[in-house]
Amino acid sequence: MHKQITSPQNLYIKELVQLKEKSRLRKKTHTFLIEGLREISLAIRGDFQIKTILIASSVFTNKEIKNLLNTINSAIEIIEISKEVYKKLATRDSTEGIIAVAKSKDLSISNIQLKSKNPLILIAEAPEKPGNIGALLRTADAAGIDAVFIANPKTDMYNPNIIRSSVGCVFTTTIATGTTSEIITFLKEKSINIYGAALTASVAYQTINYTHPSAIVVGTEATGLSEEWLHNTTKNVIIPMRGAIDSMNVSVSAAILIFEAIRQRNL
Amino acid sequence: MHKQITSPQNLYIKELVQLKEKSRLRKKTHTFLIEGLREISLAIRGDFQIKTILIASSVFTNKEIKNLLNTINSAIEIIEISKEVYKKLATRDSTEGIIAVAKSKDLSISNIQLKSKNPLILIAEAPEKPGNIGALLRTADAAGIDAVFIANPKTDMYNPNIIRSSVGCVFTTTIATGTTSEIITFLKEKSINIYGAALTASVAYQTINYTHPSAIVVGTEATGLSEEWLHNTTKNVIIPMRGAIDSMNVSVSAAILIFEAIRQRNL
Repeated sequence: MHKQITSPQNLYIKELVQLKEKSRLRKKTHTFLIEGLREISLAIRGDFQIKTILIASSVFTNKEIKNLLNTINSAIEIIEISKEVYKKLATRDSTEGIIAVAKSKDLSISNIQLKSKNPLILIAEAPEKPGNIGALLRTADAAGIDAVFIANPKTDMYNPNIIRSSVGCVFTTTIATGTTSEIITFLKEKSINIYGAALTASVAYQTINYTHPSAIVVGTEATGLSEEWLHNTTKNVIIPMRGAIDSMNVSVSAAILIFEAIRQRNL
Repeated sequence: MHKQITSPQNLYIKELVQLKEKSRLRKKTHTFLIEGLREISLAIRGDFQIKTILIASSVFTNKEIKNLLNTINSAIEIIEISKEVYKKLATRDSTEGIIAVAKSKDLSISNIQLKSKNPLILIAEAPEKPGNIGALLRTADAAGIDAVFIANPKTDMYNPNIIRSSVGCVFTTTIATGTTSEIITFLKEKSINIYGAALTASVAYQTINYTHPSAIVVGTEATGLSEEWLHNTTKNVIIPMRGAIDSMNVSVSAAILIFEAIRQRNL
């Protein structure tokens, strides 16, 4: 018999709602929420420590949830919650009825260990929307690159919208965050070539050789990369555009650059 | 002195709200709404006929709107509307205060004229979300390809969310719609090679030569391309994925394929 919580006014539930909404609280407590079976499974696969699993058994009819519960560590606390409590905690319409409380990882750039001696890294500076970070992480996952760095992040990586839009790739991709200066220092120390995607640059992206250790850096859609990046790159590159408008979605630009690098590395 | 409408209950305004919301009405009346200065400018550039421009002068402080009004055909009716009327018609938060009523184009595949003898075409089958179509159109614009075809569309192309997410590229890109059968017939008649992006295929996309007349076809994220496409392609190709999840956003996949074709054509 599991512990049960049926009131949305329960203090612990109110704390969890705060955790969903407040980046500052996630950072302070080193915990965050994961909604959805697939996402929780990927977090377990990514070695995240799950502290508690909350299940709305009135919502969940899913056999896979039962399977998940059978496989997890018995030290994890299971709490049965009412549909009302679930609605308060969930951010999505589709109601799988399962939410986990997990321990966050320290993503500081100083902690990162790159396994490959010839890494390919995607870096995004100050991405504007959590959805953009999620899309970048999906691309990084598909491409199988070594790491994604977020420079000068505007939110923590355990923002519910990042988890959702990354379809859980935030748990399986090697991620680091830091200031632009810290990340530039890291790359230079490791002799990793830096290619900045610039809105105005004379070198077309496809003329670069990405088969050596490479970091591809993209800026925001609105303003591009900061001067600090542009002045510290090995080369600034451009995706030539030939249309009526001269901008591309940041996740689309990143995918074009990353998959060109992968193409060259596969030759 | 322009005509003025201040009441959101005005019958003409109610009709326009219907036009914003109902694909069927847009199709029946061959008219649709365009919100925003940039979008209206691109529609004019794309030779769309503007019938009426509605301006909330209490909202608009924008010098560019005045400039636009100075340049347009004097036969276009200008109506001043109140802020309340504007709010009813607008779909966005950012309030530029300008909305146009425009005549739609017949996008039937039978009408299309390709200018290039060596065309590169992007085709999407039954895209799920208007936002995905908008993203595809942005990529097509940036790449400068010859046309975008939407097979078995689930909405008309003058859906407000397509206009918005395409940032107006829906007006400057050559677009055609039709059934999958009609489009396959068109391509075969013109001897255009068809490359279907398949979720399972043995040929990696980068091994194909796209320098001849080529159509790149992408399906939905959930189910991929229909059998009808897969059986009628010159070749089915795959973007090899190496991650924890085996899907990519459709606009990201399309961008990778299209920019590989462009890369080859620029060599």
